[in-house]
Amino acid sequence: MSIISIRRAREADVAAIVAMLADDELGRAREDAGTPLAQAYLDAFAQIDADPNQLLAVMTDGDDVIGTLQISFLTGLSLRGARRGQIEAVRVAAHRRSEGLGQRLFEWAIETCRERGCRVAQLTTDKTRLDAHRFYDRLGFKASHVGYKLQL
Amino acid sequence: MSIISIRRAREADVAAIVAMLADDELGRAREDAGTPLAQAYLDAFAQIDADPNQLLAVMTDGDDVIGTLQISFLTGLSLRGARRGQIEAVRVAAHRRSEGLGQRLFEWAIETCRERGCRVAQLTTDKTRLDAHRFYDRLGFKASHVGYKLQL
Repeated sequence: MSIISIRRAREADVAAIVAMLADDELGRAREDAGTPLAQAYLDAFAQIDADPNQLLAVMTDGDDVIGTLQISFLTGLSLRGARRGQIEAVRVAAHRRSEGLGQRLFEWAIETCRERGCRVAQLTTDKTRLDAHRFYDRLGFKASHVGYKLQL
Repeated sequence: MSIISIRRAREADVAAIVAMLADDELGRAREDAGTPLAQAYLDAFAQIDADPNQLLAVMTDGDDVIGTLQISFLTGLSLRGARRGQIEAVRVAAHRRSEGLGQRLFEWAIETCRERGCRVAQLTTDKTRLDAHRFYDRLGFKASHVGYKLQL
């Protein structure tokens, strides 16, 4: 029987998370999922894990990591000093897609944002990810903004 | 003589920052720049100021606060564990626009992101802010993403 749960990521999950980030048409070129795992990923995990305003989560089925996302809790002065929950690096393992797991992961993320007092949940997604756009539309997100990136 | 500088914001700057956030066609409806300043803004400032991964900045001309932006330094596993600098809540005081101050503020923000080891600078802007789009295009940002928001 499948027992799916969602929890805070641990260091032991990092390789599985990176494998999901890399297993994607955009991720393939920019990640390095080779073994041993590049130290840069472990260093980044340590920074994320130590920051109370960051929450890297995994969805698991038994011992298998089958999904991930990261929430950054961002307080600003805008919107009368509102906190926002920013969701990034969302993936469901390729062999577990089309089971509604992404929706379950997102419902958890949105509920977590509410519990942490966020007034807005926000994310950006590449213009080419048309399936993702339909997914976020269905969840009630509004595509109200343009997302700009500058490589440094 | 005008002496313009950019520095970390202090609590005494918050009222001037909120006034700039409110003096805007989208900001007017969602901010409260009345006096005494709503405590929620001061509480939010305290949280931002205490977080080493947040930098709320002001541009000043002598004693006058004439611009603001906030940078969030966000570490993720994506892009081989990259840090990103996310720029939000950008404003130049209405009476000081068209002097190139926004560009100067942004050049400072981008340099600050580089100094803090960011591989990417990112931001979102409302689809209706066409002048802002031209500004970010000129600075070399790529409008590669769609920005989604969900009110909670």
